[in-house]
Amino acid sequence: MKYLLKIKYIGTAYCGFQCQKNGTAIQNVLTAAAEKVFGCPTMITGCSRTDSGVHALGFCATAEPEEQATIPAEKLHRAFAAYLPDDIAVVAAAEVADDFHPRYNAKGKRYVYRIYDALCEDPFEKQRSMRSTPINEESLAKMQEAAEHFVGSHDFSSFMAKGSKIVDTVRCVTEATVCRDESGCIVFSVAADGFLYNMVRIMVGTLLDVAKGRLEPSDIPSVISSLDRGRAGTTAPPYGLYLKEVFYEEKIDWKCS
Amino acid sequence: MKYLLKIKYIGTAYCGFQCQKNGTAIQNVLTAAAEKVFGCPTMITGCSRTDSGVHALGFCATAEPEEQATIPAEKLHRAFAAYLPDDIAVVAAAEVADDFHPRYNAKGKRYVYRIYDALCEDPFEKQRSMRSTPINEESLAKMQEAAEHFVGSHDFSSFMAKGSKIVDTVRCVTEATVCRDESGCIVFSVAADGFLYNMVRIMVGTLLDVAKGRLEPSDIPSVISSLDRGRAGTTAPPYGLYLKEVFYEEKIDWKCS
Repeated sequence: MKYLLKIKYIGTAYCGFQCQKNGTAIQNVLTAAAEKVFGCPTMITGCSRTDSGVHALGFCATAEPEEQATIPAEKLHRAFAAYLPDDIAVVAAAEVADDFHPRYNAKGKRYVYRIYDALCEDPFEKQRSMRSTPINEESLAKMQEAAEHFVGSHDFSSFMAKGSKIVDTVRCVTEATVCRDESGCIVFSVAADGFLYNMVRIMVGTLLDVAKGRLEPSDIPSVISSLDRGRAGTTAPPYGLYLKEVFYEEKIDWKCS
Repeated sequence: MKYLLKIKYIGTAYCGFQCQKNGTAIQNVLTAAAEKVFGCPTMITGCSRTDSGVHALGFCATAEPEEQATIPAEKLHRAFAAYLPDDIAVVAAAEVADDFHPRYNAKGKRYVYRIYDALCEDPFEKQRSMRSTPINEESLAKMQEAAEHFVGSHDFSSFMAKGSKIVDTVRCVTEATVCRDESGCIVFSVAADGFLYNMVRIMVGTLLDVAKGRLEPSDIPSVISSLDRGRAGTTAPPYGLYLKEVFYEEKIDWKCS
């Protein structure tokens, strides 16, 4: 039996999803919990790495217990709740085919990035959003206009961390919006068939350059076409970033009861 | 100079606002920060105690430095930010008259209580809302109907923790609503000229009895008039409770820049 797990986590205390030499990864904690849930060695495979401090609202990972598992998918969220710490939760689960791979079968993902720009600090936003000086409505509209230029198939080399070894740097962005949400934060939402290393965080740094007037929305196409990392903005901090959703070709029969 | 400070805090790590023999209180931390901000002994007086684990979105406290202070109110939020931990923030400040008392001058307060009732756990809600089994729309409507019976001047003895020494137990509730907010939580919002010890948390326990069918909305008037703590529900946990707003007779000239 192979299960796909949908996971929410607060990334603050972890060095990312994937096991690292230094620090505790979400994968370590999830593996330990899975072995208690299934009572046998269990392989956990994630849909992506996430950086240290990055959060997830809908991370996907497969769990493959070595022995035959009998626990139904709809009960897994409860079983895991008994063994996971407060900052990680399985929110739904599905049975998937043996050859299903959470990363290679993904046809896209959506990330959101939260920017808190009020004058005063908010303890409830600490480590859950990026801090910015106030952004007025006019600047917000410019960020939205700039974000629209990300949509489409482009070589996003300008938006990839230097040193990344990826060869194919073309990605198709299917959605990119900026708005202010109910909590008062500015939220950048972006969906694509895949993301280069630090791509969302560099997009955010670039949108903040637009908010500050260092770039115009109409400059974005040339920042993209330059293929020059130096033309885009700085890399925004990890703690504003949330992996929101993973899209799969096959219909996933999510269960939670 | 006497300042009124508006404060947000995550109450999880503290034993409440007021200094206690055991544990660190918000007041301890705020006093230490104020003495650094003003460079002299400073008396901090709060608008109320709050229980251990209770949060605040708009707690009010006065700060009275022993020596003449020259720092303008609008700069205080920044000055405090340098000395306060991540879970406490001054969000605005005002100059007030020497005889202003943050508790006795208050003519009312508003609290909100958050209930998280999804099937699965949410790490982002841990310690920030009460956990409940799912509440459907019909039950939510009953909770709203029940809450309306709280409005008015009543002897709220049934909604006061046993052992409380308060003699005058009549309070005037000016607003009591139940709705589901954008985050998916059920939010009970209640404003009154004052609150008895644990009053909001017992109201929530009672509303949950209504949701579960153990009480009908129309039972609330008789629960109130019985003056019997045993007729009301259990005391809901502290971590769902937020002191949202304090109302003063005088217009407070809040500043933050």
